[in-house]
Amino acid sequence: MDLNADLGEGFGRWSLGDDDALLGIVTSANVACGFHAGDPSTMHRICGVAVERSVAVGAQVGYRDLAGFGRRRIDYDLDELRDDVLYQIGALEGFCRVAGGRVRYVKPHGALYNTAAVDEGQANAVVAAVVAYDRELPVLCQPGSVLARLATSAGLTVIGEGFADRGYRADGTLMPRSLPDAVLHEPDEVVARAVRMAVEQVVETPDGERVPTPVASICVHGDTSGAVNLAAKVRAGLTAAGLSVEPFSS
Amino acid sequence: MDLNADLGEGFGRWSLGDDDALLGIVTSANVACGFHAGDPSTMHRICGVAVERSVAVGAQVGYRDLAGFGRRRIDYDLDELRDDVLYQIGALEGFCRVAGGRVRYVKPHGALYNTAAVDEGQANAVVAAVVAYDRELPVLCQPGSVLARLATSAGLTVIGEGFADRGYRADGTLMPRSLPDAVLHEPDEVVARAVRMAVEQVVETPDGERVPTPVASICVHGDTSGAVNLAAKVRAGLTAAGLSVEPFSS
Amino acid sequence: MDLNADLGEGFGRWSLGDDDALLGIVTSANVACGFHAGDPSTMHRICGVAVERSVAVGAQVGYRDLAGFGRRRIDYDLDELRDDVLYQIGALEGFCRVAGGRVRYVKPHGALYNTAAVDEGQANAVVAAVVAYDRELPVLCQPGSVLARLATSAGLTVIGEGFADRGYRADGTLMPRSLPDAVLHEPDEVVARAVRMAVEQVVETPDGERVPTPVASICVHGDTSGAVNLAAKVRAGLTAAGLSVEPFSS
Amino acid sequence: MDLNADLGEGFGRWSLGDDDALLGIVTSANVACGFHAGDPSTMHRICGVAVERSVAVGAQVGYRDLAGFGRRRIDYDLDELRDDVLYQIGALEGFCRVAGGRVRYVKPHGALYNTAAVDEGQANAVVAAVVAYDRELPVLCQPGSVLARLATSAGLTVIGEGFADRGYRADGTLMPRSLPDAVLHEPDEVVARAVRMAVEQVVETPDGERVPTPVASICVHGDTSGAVNLAAKVRAGLTAAGLSVEPFSS
Repeated sequence: MDLNADLGEGFGRWSLGDDDALLGIVTSANVACGFHAGDPSTMHRICGVAVERSVAVGAQVGYRDLAGFGRRRIDYDLDELRDDVLYQIGALEGFCRVAGGRVRYVKPHGALYNTAAVDEGQANAVVAAVVAYDRELPVLCQPGSVLARLATSAGLTVIGEGFADRGYRADGTLMPRSLPDAVLHEPDEVVARAVRMAVEQVVETPDGERVPTPVASICVHGDTSGAVNLAAKVRAGLTAAGLSVEPFSS
Repeated sequence: MDLNADLGEGFGRWSLGDDDALLGIVTSANVACGFHAGDPSTMHRICGVAVERSVAVGAQVGYRDLAGFGRRRIDYDLDELRDDVLYQIGALEGFCRVAGGRVRYVKPHGALYNTAAVDEGQANAVVAAVVAYDRELPVLCQPGSVLARLATSAGLTVIGEGFADRGYRADGTLMPRSLPDAVLHEPDEVVARAVRMAVEQVVETPDGERVPTPVASICVHGDTSGAVNLAAKVRAGLTAAGLSVEPFSS
Repeated sequence: MDLNADLGEGFGRWSLGDDDALLGIVTSANVACGFHAGDPSTMHRICGVAVERSVAVGAQVGYRDLAGFGRRRIDYDLDELRDDVLYQIGALEGFCRVAGGRVRYVKPHGALYNTAAVDEGQANAVVAAVVAYDRELPVLCQPGSVLARLATSAGLTVIGEGFADRGYRADGTLMPRSLPDAVLHEPDEVVARAVRMAVEQVVETPDGERVPTPVASICVHGDTSGAVNLAAKVRAGLTAAGLSVEPFSS
Repeated sequence: MDLNADLGEGFGRWSLGDDDALLGIVTSANVACGFHAGDPSTMHRICGVAVERSVAVGAQVGYRDLAGFGRRRIDYDLDELRDDVLYQIGALEGFCRVAGGRVRYVKPHGALYNTAAVDEGQANAVVAAVVAYDRELPVLCQPGSVLARLATSAGLTVIGEGFADRGYRADGTLMPRSLPDAVLHEPDEVVARAVRMAVEQVVETPDGERVPTPVASICVHGDTSGAVNLAAKVRAGLTAAGLSVEPFSS
């Protein structure tokens, strides 16, 4: 089982999250590429450490929106969206190359993640970028999403990911953050769900319904110190359950 | 002899120069990479056409300064400058890859070009980026500059370029634009100088002094219609002089 | 009758449209404020000339999206949208103050214009900005739009504008640019429609249906030389029809 | 005696310093205006709280350089620098107006602060902006600097500021951060120096030489929790020394 987290989401003077701590916990690093967050020196540094520690580097591609942190949906021209994704993958690849590695997967960020999960146009733009760049590059996204479906249709490898700390609905989608039960905070519960997702490929709704979750990666967060501790606990839980925690792309 | 020009220097809604016309004239295209000018869709398009027409694509790397078009010197932290250069090379490489080609050389833009010609710190930052990325990648710059010297010391290939429409001083440096004779406007004169530079590797100062110019590429401009015509005349002049006009990097 | 046009829509090295020509034709200048286009020095210069020539200066407020020229809808947090609008009005006011004038109205640009015409949330954000800044400031927008309605409800003055070169539908909305008849190119026809809008407050659909257009300003474009000539013709036509062409806000 | 600090230096998702804590300590808030840091919603919020608490709002104007946090010298065209300063003052003024207040002073940030302290061109650009905007607006800067001299010559009010935690040289300039003794960390010592600066208008060099410091404001920092505590101690120390801590501009 793989463990992924967002890294390198600062910008210049501003930092966010504890990249160094996370690089000791996760097996896949979704590295911000400069459009919604991330700057060249941070990318350079993270790629170096990640390659050294055998953490897989993925391109965390987002909208060109530093002010909105890529969290506001933008109605892109779809060719421009494809090209913005290509640009970000290429920029990150340069730093991976310098570090002796390479970009191992692509994961959309924020509003692009959410939009590509339901919108064929934007999903296709992401798929078109990956197809044009390298058909061997997997896309990390939510199982059952429009992006997952279109990427599969295009012949790309799709890696499903699960969120141990998020509430699920019966159709396998996440509960909107506006609802109670959308985010789980109790560490033991989060760890238990991560293990169940990984081992049984299933998650429970608040009503106790069992929803299949075909995931090869668990997403953890790292923008608070509590989150880093929780990520470590999830990793320990997976290991204790007998799972080998390693990059999906190795 | 190679003929190079700056291309892709628009941004989004704004365009600058006649990229399509230039792609039919030059043999090397210095493509703006998004920091001082250039956007992903323009880069994508230009790389496609350039590869198709066997025009060599170079990374025209600049300061992160859209508002100043990369023409204002910035006192970068030198590691950050190296990383900004790496980021831009990588981004362009992605589009070259999609087009079936690759980045063939690096040329600094504007204030970075001028600063790296005299400042060891910034010149070293550019050299460090190229060395880290790919030691086989040539640097296109002014013969005799600090950048040329440091790149050579670092084992990089340096391609000297000459400016057919600029006045030279006896020490081989360009006359500052603030002086008369800094820019030549008479087309026949510009063509004659280009040919002489290419054939005899020499240029004359306003005083008639002959200055050696060890150049393998002539830089032409393209941001006005007159400039495009002049570029075509320079190419015709070189051909008429019996020179083969082709990329230095082929 | 007022004549308005977008001005100052370049950015740094890039220019767009012939601001100087337009400042001799229009009576109201929608000045870009730096978020989708426009830079401080351009704003400074235009405010100076506009005040000198008694052209009313309006804040052409847009999304923070230089790469998309403000033409891509962004799902802003509405408080942030209000604050982005306030910021732009304030910045322009500074240059008006220096020129001895003041901001005389607010007009949304591009995707914000189109979104605020139909979306209550974004329309309210624009209204909230104007209400907070200065309740005396008119909003220039399309008659019948959601923005017009909400601005009126909030006690603001709404100035309706008409587009002489755009096709209208029977409900008073513009024909989408994807349809034929969306844009009129024949100068005499455009002038005739401008005059009819101004004098009779009516426009005809392609089917010949007469649609009421309660407008106090006609919007002309200026981003091509043909457009500038057309703007001049529209002004001449209005004058020949006996109308006084002057700012609505004088 | 006035106490000033930099506020609002986050950007979008990224925050920096504890603005709320500082607004309860300082009497003058140097609010970042969006070019090196700061976003409209943060500016809006801070202006509201500041006006409510009678904290004077100053425009902390910087280079257009989010990636470098305004800390890299940029060789601006001087008219463009003046206009960038004007733009920032205007933008902040809008939020002050909404809050029922106004911009009370101007203080350059980072590399602009340091450059304008020694460079006549950039100092004049800042002065020209303030003169054009409002001759009554004071400039907060280092006593004895080029900016202080030129602002005084231009008829502007100059408010000298002192740094209680920085080492001074015998000529009244700050010790470069590269030297030991450049920054003082011992709280009691910092407070003692602040009180002495305020009461005796003097500071001691590491060699024990007494240097005159004609200051009406003490600058404190707030980007760490330790710094906020120190700021509170400085305020308490000034009060204990019998000084009234209040805005210089009231």
